[in-house]
Amino acid sequence: MLHVEFTTPLGARVTVDIADSRQLDATLRQYGRLGWTSGDVPTGGYQFPYDNFPDFDWSLIGARKWKSPEGEDVIFHRGHSYKIRVLEAVDSRKMKLPPAIKISRGAKNTDPAHVREKGEGEIEYVTLAIFRGGKRRENLAVPAQEHAEAAD
Amino acid sequence: MLHVEFTTPLGARVTVDIADSRQLDATLRQYGRLGWTSGDVPTGGYQFPYDNFPDFDWSLIGARKWKSPEGEDVIFHRGHSYKIRVLEAVDSRKMKLPPAIKISRGAKNTDPAHVREKGEGEIEYVTLAIFRGGKRRENLAVPAQEHAEAAD
Amino acid sequence: MLHVEFTTPLGARVTVDIADSRQLDATLRQYGRLGWTSGDVPTGGYQFPYDNFPDFDWSLIGARKWKSPEGEDVIFHRGHSYKIRVLEAVDSRKMKLPPAIKISRGAKNTDPAHVREKGEGEIEYVTLAIFRGGKRRENLAVPAQEHAEAAD
Amino acid sequence: MLHVEFTTPLGARVTVDIADSRQLDATLRQYGRLGWTSGDVPTGGYQFPYDNFPDFDWSLIGARKWKSPEGEDVIFHRGHSYKIRVLEAVDSRKMKLPPAIKISRGAKNTDPAHVREKGEGEIEYVTLAIFRGGKRRENLAVPAQEHAEAAD
Amino acid sequence: MLHVEFTTPLGARVTVDIADSRQLDATLRQYGRLGWTSGDVPTGGYQFPYDNFPDFDWSLIGARKWKSPEGEDVIFHRGHSYKIRVLEAVDSRKMKLPPAIKISRGAKNTDPAHVREKGEGEIEYVTLAIFRGGKRRENLAVPAQEHAEAAD
Repeated sequence: MLHVEFTTPLGARVTVDIADSRQLDATLRQYGRLGWTSGDVPTGGYQFPYDNFPDFDWSLIGARKWKSPEGEDVIFHRGHSYKIRVLEAVDSRKMKLPPAIKISRGAKNTDPAHVREKGEGEIEYVTLAIFRGGKRRENLAVPAQEHAEAAD
Repeated sequence: MLHVEFTTPLGARVTVDIADSRQLDATLRQYGRLGWTSGDVPTGGYQFPYDNFPDFDWSLIGARKWKSPEGEDVIFHRGHSYKIRVLEAVDSRKMKLPPAIKISRGAKNTDPAHVREKGEGEIEYVTLAIFRGGKRRENLAVPAQEHAEAAD
Repeated sequence: MLHVEFTTPLGARVTVDIADSRQLDATLRQYGRLGWTSGDVPTGGYQFPYDNFPDFDWSLIGARKWKSPEGEDVIFHRGHSYKIRVLEAVDSRKMKLPPAIKISRGAKNTDPAHVREKGEGEIEYVTLAIFRGGKRRENLAVPAQEHAEAAD
Repeated sequence: MLHVEFTTPLGARVTVDIADSRQLDATLRQYGRLGWTSGDVPTGGYQFPYDNFPDFDWSLIGARKWKSPEGEDVIFHRGHSYKIRVLEAVDSRKMKLPPAIKISRGAKNTDPAHVREKGEGEIEYVTLAIFRGGKRRENLAVPAQEHAEAAD
Repeated sequence: MLHVEFTTPLGARVTVDIADSRQLDATLRQYGRLGWTSGDVPTGGYQFPYDNFPDFDWSLIGARKWKSPEGEDVIFHRGHSYKIRVLEAVDSRKMKLPPAIKISRGAKNTDPAHVREKGEGEIEYVTLAIFRGGKRRENLAVPAQEHAEAAD
């Protein structure tokens, strides 16, 4: 048996028993759709392959895509709204970086120091996830069946 | 099976087993009425919809409404009394904010840095919850039956 | 079933299963008599009603009363000796405070910042518990039977 | 029964039950191959015997050897790439140190202070593991059967 | 049933089930001989009675006595070697202290601030344990049977 530790949107700590490790992703999706999260965001944010961005299943990390009142796509995670920023490829003599999609928000004064990253000027931000390079992993995508249902 | 981790008013760490995730809210209410809490207050405080304030079920987070000796409604949570502050809507050229109810208290010197928020002057405060915007969620209200009993 | 997390005097982390929440206090007492503690001391110390001090059951928090070689009553908790200080009532124009009993010790340089409180001059101290105001709670007292046995 | 706590690559906290402590290493290997880790890297990094480096089983700590695009062997662990550095023996009047292999990376500004080590100049780095001295422990090596399979 | 949480020498977090609290010490010894530890070293180090030093069972805290290449007895615990220092009794007008045995090591720059103690000059050290005063506790000694076996 396996046991998955979650934090609910009310902040409650709840452990869910599952019979088999093959049920893990489905369990993360099922509770993640309700905003439940397991574990902490890694420092510097989740790192996912660039090609996973278009159909990334946000429920895997307890997040969801949401259209803000201003009509902008944002990612909602544990009470915070994150913007979707496109970082173009860098190809200079000093540095070569493939293009990336960064999911980040401005830092708040209640954010602990180790999640704040220095931006331009005095701005600090917090990164939820970055999609860059790597090789697409199918298990991170919205399952095919849900795609079909969403298209009905 | 699910397992809910609580901290009791004596500070003891106790996990309660429940058979089904549908029992979770009832379990939080049952132990919350005794002042048991699960997990930590999110940084910046709990965020709830504005329309949930009038009949919010404080037992869900292990808190309770209480009338202070001065006749003021306060919220009691883990040994601290929080005041209920009404924040009026802001509608200036720089900022638009809907009205809010903020549940907060002055910071004490034993409060860790990441829960302190800067207020006016040198005052620092700690927020338990803020009710602003959003859409009312029925599951956060005192259950109807209890309302009826309370009215008897 | 419930599960109570303890730290033993050797620092070991041990969880004890109990069948029912009504057994919780007896379990805290049983292991507390051996110096086992559950959870952390709340920041600022435990807060108990003033009228609970005379027969407070220190085993509930894994502490015990002890007579120091100098003949002074002290409270022993997790390897530290705390003094019992009587704080008289304050009744000035600026502040009204009922009398209190404070259980505290001088800070050591290995104490983390968030448990240190500023005292007079450069002295810092750490509070285990404060008994002030409130309404006596019978469940915090040494059980009647034990009183009788102790008197035999 | 034993219970092993893991963090998955998605950051989820999952506990796996095993029947016997003799299954522990096999369980760490099985999930470690998927990038699951149990516990934290010790401060200063894991310490292993020097003679374990050539066939060290990186899956035991949820890491894997990987060839970077530049053709360099690197160790991948929880989203970070670590370089393999050879430290020659020191045999001066002030200090005697046997040769070592150090697995480390440059520090990032989101790394907490207690994992950063001062290097030359203003450079700070983070150590995953150091192989120095000691006596080879067979249980840290890639199991013989896997060696055979890899050679097929 | 009781559950004892350990950290293995590989840093893995493993919980061991035991049927009865009377098995606890034997379980700590059994796994402690393998270098498994339960919980953290208390701030300031473990405090044991002075008379327990000669036959203290280091396996209870996952440590072991070891003879260094220089022929000196040292205590090995979680990857660090600690020296055994004899502190003579202090009997001045300002302070009276019984003799003590202190198990400590020099601080490393990856040690967190709350375990570092100021020594003479700029030296900082970390204490694993101190044996001073108190009354010998038999349960901390190497069990008699093992003594006999060791003497065979």
